[in-house]
Amino acid sequence: MAITISVLKEATGENRVALSPDVVRKLVKNDYQVLIEQGAGERSFYRDAVYTDAGAKVVDRSEAITQATVIATIAQPDDAAIDQMKAGQTLIGLLAPLTDTEFVKKLAAKKINALAFELLPRTVSRAQTMDVLSSQASVAGYKVGLMAADHFSRYFPMMITAAGTAKPAKVLVLGTGVAGLQAIGTAKRLGAMVSGYDIRPASRGEVESLGATFLTTSVSATGEGGYARQLTEEETAQQQAELEGFIAQNNVIITTAQVPGRRPPLLVTQKSVDEAKTGTLFMDLAASDLGGNVAGSKPGETVTTPNGAEIVGAGDMASQLPASASDMYAKNVQAVLNDLNKDGKLVFDIDDEVVGELLATYDGEIISNRLRSVMELPERQPAEPEEPETPAEDDAKGAD
Amino acid sequence: MAITISVLKEATGENRVALSPDVVRKLVKNDYQVLIEQGAGERSFYRDAVYTDAGAKVVDRSEAITQATVIATIAQPDDAAIDQMKAGQTLIGLLAPLTDTEFVKKLAAKKINALAFELLPRTVSRAQTMDVLSSQASVAGYKVGLMAADHFSRYFPMMITAAGTAKPAKVLVLGTGVAGLQAIGTAKRLGAMVSGYDIRPASRGEVESLGATFLTTSVSATGEGGYARQLTEEETAQQQAELEGFIAQNNVIITTAQVPGRRPPLLVTQKSVDEAKTGTLFMDLAASDLGGNVAGSKPGETVTTPNGAEIVGAGDMASQLPASASDMYAKNVQAVLNDLNKDGKLVFDIDDEVVGELLATYDGEIISNRLRSVMELPERQPAEPEEPETPAEDDAKGAD
Repeated sequence: MAITISVLKEATGENRVALSPDVVRKLVKNDYQVLIEQGAGERSFYRDAVYTDAGAKVVDRSEAITQATVIATIAQPDDAAIDQMKAGQTLIGLLAPLTDTEFVKKLAAKKINALAFELLPRTVSRAQTMDVLSSQASVAGYKVGLMAADHFSRYFPMMITAAGTAKPAKVLVLGTGVAGLQAIGTAKRLGAMVSGYDIRPASRGEVESLGATFLTTSVSATGEGGYARQLTEEETAQQQAELEGFIAQNNVIITTAQVPGRRPPLLVTQKSVDEAKTGTLFMDLAASDLGGNVAGSKPGETVTTPNGAEIVGAGDMASQLPASASDMYAKNVQAVLNDLNKDGKLVFDIDDEVVGELLATYDGEIISNRLRSVMELPERQPAEPEEPETPAEDDAKGAD
Repeated sequence: MAITISVLKEATGENRVALSPDVVRKLVKNDYQVLIEQGAGERSFYRDAVYTDAGAKVVDRSEAITQATVIATIAQPDDAAIDQMKAGQTLIGLLAPLTDTEFVKKLAAKKINALAFELLPRTVSRAQTMDVLSSQASVAGYKVGLMAADHFSRYFPMMITAAGTAKPAKVLVLGTGVAGLQAIGTAKRLGAMVSGYDIRPASRGEVESLGATFLTTSVSATGEGGYARQLTEEETAQQQAELEGFIAQNNVIITTAQVPGRRPPLLVTQKSVDEAKTGTLFMDLAASDLGGNVAGSKPGETVTTPNGAEIVGAGDMASQLPASASDMYAKNVQAVLNDLNKDGKLVFDIDDEVVGELLATYDGEIISNRLRSVMELPERQPAEPEEPETPAEDDAKGAD
């Protein structure tokens, strides 16, 4: 029997869809059956008819859930959907296991197999085609750069006209991971004077290769998995104070410092916000209910300060470029399916370095050791131990 | 006594302001007195305090009106402001004389001197620093290109990522005057595949110099003042039919064909709109109450077609980049003042080729011959006739 992949319609506010018509066409060609919930692609400008043309069957939500081998989503499905699922079915998406362990427990209790993109071991090269965090951060960085230019009251480029010359905008990007580099690239394309700041000195080369100026503070920190390590209170205060000087010299400040499952670091202090000149624009890509990189940012809202600066809580940027974001997401989902598919059957090798970490739950067990550590469960032992156990204390240090 | 320039706060919906703090500083240095109505610059991110710093006096509306030698505005002031003005005061702005002749008559009856930027003889080289239509079209073209990218559901640039490659967007700009060229430039900066269409074959070089493809139809027409001439019905139908083919091949269509005082030509037919694929984006810079370049466009609104294409009525783009647009506008106003100022007095030489056309009214008379022609008044005779009169019939042909 064919493997059936079902795509559910996301909740209001999420514009993306887990599979694009292009990827559906490829899956169907590889003998998958694809079911699309009615209207699932609507907000990504993919209508039902386009999925039908690609070989999918458009069905109601109930059928999509109950007939699925694998349900692909962007975010966690609602409780009703989970309740309809049965043991042995698989769920794949951004399931927020590190921050919502109750959801994980529920899936385990129902023996639903859950692949959570947040758990992907991103430094393993085989995993890169599956890296949703990276593909969506890339989309988000492009989009936040664009939205900054569209939101700003002045030109980004220098303009020379009969009436006179307009100066280019000065744009500062704080945090130069995948999203930050794309934001820099977009602002540079538009002709702004761009500088990029990161706490990881290694990112200098990437920033400079885009033609932007690299800024450093006396605080530097490289952590695991490419992320910065968490700073001490003293280091944070020192970093913030030095950043205040940089921020005051720019018209547009785009902040992109995020660490999955942790409160984003505060990079722009209340003092910087209070002292920002009228028309200064802060775009906070890390804006979330936990807080953001900019003091006073609110997710999905634009806050105007008494001085007339603006803070845009730009926490859902990938969803704001829905067609391209969905295309990339779908390719990541397809890469996972390709990886699991052995001769027409999905095989979950829980001892594999990628699959074993991507799996939040399998057959009622919590599989990912990163997740187990967050849930304070003992490390899972591989089937055949390959090396002597390292002391647990060392392992915990620096991790997440 | 010093010449006093007053700036009024515009009506809701207009974000620009007629003088920028930079220009105020220069005017004050040149012995002008500048009065700013409270809050006039607020929506351009120029607060009262910035004007005070530049040497202006911030006053209430009544004082700004009654104390002015010259009142500078973006659009027509309201009736109450006109009622408060006295004979001999001067008004400068986008006063819409060609489409609102009742307003002109009112100004003439009150003996208010009115300089209307729409009447500027744009081909005279001395007039170029005063050319508000050009400076604002330039801002509008940049902004509409940016807004198109921000509104579109996909990347403009080609993106090569670990998950795969995204194709660049295909952008078609219809009308390659000042605004169209800026829209092309912005879309090119962002990495889109851009083509530009114009009915004036002479614009090929400008389009190609921006790296875009120039498209032509079998209909071509160059008119006066750099604008295209009005087409016959048959030519229009032929042009529209040929454009349908181009439009269907693009994802984003930006239309910029405007002729002051005339209904914008319909370039995108209902058929093109009906057949446009889901996610196609039309940005109509010519959207107005008279109609636009795109069938069904509405000024200030986004219309979604049954097929899922979107038509954005982008008629007020300059106002959406208010600080830069105001900066340019203010420089144009300053250029006019410089031109009129003879030894500290404003002198209106109604026989000058620029001033005589820019003046809608002076001392109770309608001065601009272009305006007189629209109002069906006989041509005004220069003080010293320089050449024999040409037959009126020939003169009307092709004009405006």
